[in-house]
Amino acid sequence: MSMTSDTELRVRYAETDQMGVAYYGSHFVWFEVGRTEYCRARGFNYADMERETGLYMVVVEAACRYRSSVRYDDVVLIRTSLTLARRRLLRFHYVVSNKGTGKPVAEGETTHLLTDRNGKPHLIPESVLQALTD
Amino acid sequence: MSMTSDTELRVRYAETDQMGVAYYGSHFVWFEVGRTEYCRARGFNYADMERETGLYMVVVEAACRYRSSVRYDDVVLIRTSLTLARRRLLRFHYVVSNKGTGKPVAEGETTHLLTDRNGKPHLIPESVLQALTD
Amino acid sequence: MSMTSDTELRVRYAETDQMGVAYYGSHFVWFEVGRTEYCRARGFNYADMERETGLYMVVVEAACRYRSSVRYDDVVLIRTSLTLARRRLLRFHYVVSNKGTGKPVAEGETTHLLTDRNGKPHLIPESVLQALTD
Amino acid sequence: MSMTSDTELRVRYAETDQMGVAYYGSHFVWFEVGRTEYCRARGFNYADMERETGLYMVVVEAACRYRSSVRYDDVVLIRTSLTLARRRLLRFHYVVSNKGTGKPVAEGETTHLLTDRNGKPHLIPESVLQALTD
Repeated sequence: MSMTSDTELRVRYAETDQMGVAYYGSHFVWFEVGRTEYCRARGFNYADMERETGLYMVVVEAACRYRSSVRYDDVVLIRTSLTLARRRLLRFHYVVSNKGTGKPVAEGETTHLLTDRNGKPHLIPESVLQALTD
Repeated sequence: MSMTSDTELRVRYAETDQMGVAYYGSHFVWFEVGRTEYCRARGFNYADMERETGLYMVVVEAACRYRSSVRYDDVVLIRTSLTLARRRLLRFHYVVSNKGTGKPVAEGETTHLLTDRNGKPHLIPESVLQALTD
Repeated sequence: MSMTSDTELRVRYAETDQMGVAYYGSHFVWFEVGRTEYCRARGFNYADMERETGLYMVVVEAACRYRSSVRYDDVVLIRTSLTLARRRLLRFHYVVSNKGTGKPVAEGETTHLLTDRNGKPHLIPESVLQALTD
Repeated sequence: MSMTSDTELRVRYAETDQMGVAYYGSHFVWFEVGRTEYCRARGFNYADMERETGLYMVVVEAACRYRSSVRYDDVVLIRTSLTLARRRLLRFHYVVSNKGTGKPVAEGETTHLLTDRNGKPHLIPESVLQALTD
């Protein structure tokens, strides 16, 4: 069972701030990119799930610890793991590093509740669970 | 008939880039803030329209000419005018200035097509037209 | 001693995502707005500090717990408190609520390290500490 | 002489809005990604130029015409061309299409002025011009 997935991206100019480094909010967008790739790597298309089942993975908690800054045009590597998947909750863990230097950039996690269109919590369908933990 | 509306905002740290000034994409977000305020000033709630009529104001064209840069914490003044409103098309014009210095910051316009949920063009309802041009 | 500061903002269209609510990364931008206002309310201009002392408040940790979603055009109220200020570290706490409904929206904190231009940790100058805790 | 460069990216959840499609401001960020790749493809590193020469490519004009919307997880192809390079001005043209469907998504251009750190216009160095038009 492989519960980890890697993806890369290049820091955009839009993501920097006047400190000359990536803005602290950008990392949460990168987590989302990592999460999307984690799902895709397992043949689970999150976009399709939203469309077909009307279920959403609502974020209930997010955290990031910043180790070192990254700059415009740096390539970051995001390693995403699923660390919890039960009943209504999913938790992902992210390790971001600077691909060029190998330095740790940040680490974080997001916790998600599965809900329907009206925000009512919903059990994670067996098929989704299977796909995500395969 | 007053076809103009003013609104202010403060440049966020998130909106700056490593050049130390507001990123060029931020201005289009400010245009959107100006547009929202233009509508609200006329008692027309765009959020309600989307919800109630299922109609959307899709952007078909956007342009900005940048005059001078603004920095974190600067207050910008956005003057929004409706310059065209007919059948399916709406056009807004924006003049952005630095409130502290009075200097022109940017000028631009956005053109919108009214569509239904499926992206099909739709005539602007008379009530919407009335509200917007009042 | 008042260690709390309130500020309001309106959810932008740009801040929503296809779920129809504010994107989870937006809340960290709002925290930044709250932090800026906290500083301003104490006559401490963060932009000036960066410019004049070459010191930066680098984020080392950020977290958010989401209580309920907010939509485009909702007004959110951000209550910012300084909960720690010693030697090199500052910590802010944020409570975000929906002004219209009074409902809690999110809660979070950010921890900051004071550094010089090269990222070297720096003691918080007495004047800064005074200003922030006044 | 190849004056064109292609790059791809996947629409992020963060880039969508409540209309369920990519927000109109996102396209300007994609233009920036295209521009960066155009430069890189010619061995010209924009990040290095900023650092080494203290020169910046300030945007003076930006425009986008939207053809069709794209959704979360769609792959867009950005074709970037340099259409003008003389004295102080550079102009890039962008054609964005949906890789999956082949449909045109948007088209636009950005015009840039070369300036020094203080915003004073500066002649484009011969070496930069050479690199960009090679």
